[in-house]
Amino acid sequence: MAKLGEEVSNKQIILRDYVSGFPKVSDMAFKTSTIRLQVPQGSKAVLFKNLYLSCDPYMRTRMKKHEFPNYVPPFTPGSVISGYGVAKVLDSGHPDFKEGDLVWGMTGWEEYSLITKPETLFKIQPTDVPLSYYTGILGMPGMSAYAGFYEVCSPKKGECVFVSAASGAVGQLVGQFAKLMGCYVVGSAGSNHKVELLKNKFGFDEAFNYKEENNLDAALKRYFPKGIDIYFENVGGKMLDAVLLNMKVHGRIAACGMISQYNLEQPEGVHNLVSVVFKRIRMQGFLVFDYFHLYPQFLDFIMKYIKEGKIVYVEDTVEGLENGPAALIGLFTGRNVGKQVVVVARE
Amino acid sequence: MAKLGEEVSNKQIILRDYVSGFPKVSDMAFKTSTIRLQVPQGSKAVLFKNLYLSCDPYMRTRMKKHEFPNYVPPFTPGSVISGYGVAKVLDSGHPDFKEGDLVWGMTGWEEYSLITKPETLFKIQPTDVPLSYYTGILGMPGMSAYAGFYEVCSPKKGECVFVSAASGAVGQLVGQFAKLMGCYVVGSAGSNHKVELLKNKFGFDEAFNYKEENNLDAALKRYFPKGIDIYFENVGGKMLDAVLLNMKVHGRIAACGMISQYNLEQPEGVHNLVSVVFKRIRMQGFLVFDYFHLYPQFLDFIMKYIKEGKIVYVEDTVEGLENGPAALIGLFTGRNVGKQVVVVARE
Repeated sequence: MAKLGEEVSNKQIILRDYVSGFPKVSDMAFKTSTIRLQVPQGSKAVLFKNLYLSCDPYMRTRMKKHEFPNYVPPFTPGSVISGYGVAKVLDSGHPDFKEGDLVWGMTGWEEYSLITKPETLFKIQPTDVPLSYYTGILGMPGMSAYAGFYEVCSPKKGECVFVSAASGAVGQLVGQFAKLMGCYVVGSAGSNHKVELLKNKFGFDEAFNYKEENNLDAALKRYFPKGIDIYFENVGGKMLDAVLLNMKVHGRIAACGMISQYNLEQPEGVHNLVSVVFKRIRMQGFLVFDYFHLYPQFLDFIMKYIKEGKIVYVEDTVEGLENGPAALIGLFTGRNVGKQVVVVARE
Repeated sequence: MAKLGEEVSNKQIILRDYVSGFPKVSDMAFKTSTIRLQVPQGSKAVLFKNLYLSCDPYMRTRMKKHEFPNYVPPFTPGSVISGYGVAKVLDSGHPDFKEGDLVWGMTGWEEYSLITKPETLFKIQPTDVPLSYYTGILGMPGMSAYAGFYEVCSPKKGECVFVSAASGAVGQLVGQFAKLMGCYVVGSAGSNHKVELLKNKFGFDEAFNYKEENNLDAALKRYFPKGIDIYFENVGGKMLDAVLLNMKVHGRIAACGMISQYNLEQPEGVHNLVSVVFKRIRMQGFLVFDYFHLYPQFLDFIMKYIKEGKIVYVEDTVEGLENGPAALIGLFTGRNVGKQVVVVARE
């Protein structure tokens, strides 16, 4: 156990250069640098030990230069990548943080991070739920599912809800929220194992493996003979195109992400947008950053359901920072089953 | 002048068969049938003389079998086509209508129409504005512009507004509404003459001829260096794709129509939908049918501006029912300058 003030090695994950096309493990490098385990005198920074790191699809968009204003900026080639994670305070120059505090929020993919603006981090109050949940159900993906479903989808009891990437960090929660509201819920996923999880663990009414469907339009018509009221969009591209053909009048599409498009140099064309007009569809993109003010309310809401066992959560955990790059890239091949977490240290 | 009870000839426009691809004049037929100028004994129908007929882009979608539920049904091959128009009551079996009443609403493309369910028609109160305006600024297109801009776009003073097909029946009004609200407004149209109209007649801040732009993205960046808050969508396809690249964060797209796509067997692909997520764009399709309850409020609003000369309206008029098919098809080549009206009779 390293002591305060000591200079120790600090393993890190670096982005080598901007990535085009499908990302590879070799686009990132594993590097060992050193760090003094102490906040510099007079600084208001906080020194964290990183415990759990979150692999999220949006991180792909940070691997290239992008021109989205008011969005998370790209990573810096040659520097440590960053992402959501759970961390513990080792030393603090900031009045709001003290040694031993646990937080979740944006941190570095490294063993120790010196964070100069810790105000955006969320403090974790001690509970008996797993700490890693703050990368998922209790963190950014949980808030995304909550804001996206309740604030963007305008759901009503009895409506027909379709969720893509439904066993993922966000999708598994959206489906469970929709069931709690009394909706009919169908999910799509990329393996038969995930389909089983959706039906037997998360309580979706139906689920299908999109990779085994030649005709997504036909698949959706099978599960939604009367059409879809709400589509929770995580994938984009061909699935969105098929969904547009199957939306009901006054349907809503909450666009949380479009993972199928992130690795394409030229995104797929979506051909059926004329349905947006004739069916009066509302398609609303959203980002969790705009909803973090609802976090305390969300935490009360979700903790109650977790404790009652009415909402469950599946994580896919890899051990060791050095396995982080492969875990992150696995999101894009669908290797993960449930929320992909990287364990850097268990406290 | 034909007398009540007489059997007279009734010129009609018939759809020959469902149309694929670009519609032609020969897809419609001019036919002369006969009609007795009298409502059958005991019927609650109303017999109308049609005065002005409206040519609207959505009519193309009725020329093929479509599967949009809760939308205007396709025309029936071999039968008279229908559309919005202004008509005068010749004879009435319905207590709400009497001889001489003027109405606007859905009628037949023929000289005389016997309408069995006249309840959906709007009565016209005598004013000094041209009667033909009830096919445009005071009718369905006017309501579309009003509902689309004020109800769907959530406009705010000072915002940057882009309107495509901006000199059309709806676009010319949207631009004027936006100027009245203190927005910066740019329109696109398909000829230099229309561009001049936009700038000099309708008061758009800027306008451009999309046919003379090799790169729509670059054109939009020229007029919207800081991006677009509101896009009033009338065309779809390539223009929508370029707009998505230029929307601001939290921008809104009101999708009123997508005329560029109606004649394509395979609609163009729209590639930049990932912007919907990262910029938190709301894209909302709407149809005027859902807003007709606002018509009385709209009429008060618009009449005041017309009388004060603060809103102007440009119509493109052809004389004679027999010229209706060419006028209708001209919408898709942009032949019309302003609202396309067909004069069947002037009272």
